[in-house]
Amino acid sequence: MAKVLVLYKTPTDAAAFDKYYATIHIPLAKQIPGLKRYDVSTGPVRAPAGPSGVHLAAELNFDSFDSLAAGMASPQGKAAAADLPNFATGGVDLYLYDSNEV
Amino acid sequence: MAKVLVLYKTPTDAAAFDKYYATIHIPLAKQIPGLKRYDVSTGPVRAPAGPSGVHLAAELNFDSFDSLAAGMASPQGKAAAADLPNFATGGVDLYLYDSNEV
Repeated sequence: MAKVLVLYKTPTDAAAFDKYYATIHIPLAKQIPGLKRYDVSTGPVRAPAGPSGVHLAAELNFDSFDSLAAGMASPQGKAAAADLPNFATGGVDLYLYDSNEV
Repeated sequence: MAKVLVLYKTPTDAAAFDKYYATIHIPLAKQIPGLKRYDVSTGPVRAPAGPSGVHLAAELNFDSFDSLAAGMASPQGKAAAADLPNFATGGVDLYLYDSNEV
């Protein structure tokens, strides 16, 4: 699978973030062509020694990196990316990679 | 699923890191009780605008957060964690969380 891993840092208003993410951003991102599976963290994102500074982790899975790249370059992918500044008030890191089970 | 997401920052010697990770760390980590699936990035970990600073991303999946916590607290989990300083010369971030498909 190829993945877009999205780590949202602690936002200024967690309740507002959660509401926007669930009602606006998930429906937008689910429209990305080629998206096969979309996983979102539930509850806290911990570090081994306590709080991680990450509020929410999401993972968008595609069959291949080519499919991922095409999806992110599509109008729907661009719309989802353009939506990030609307709610990711703590900042967000995106990581794109292929991965295999070992 | 509950996940341990591990992001290894760019090490001082990528070839040495890769060799150690494949031959020593993966076999250690695979012994963690309750580990259901272990995925590792292949090739570069990109950011949307270029290099991400992350050399390798790994994801250890467990059936539940209780199983994850028990696995990480086991002797095998502690051995895998204690191995990190042996090769993660660029630093490493761990994130532990429950996640659901949306």
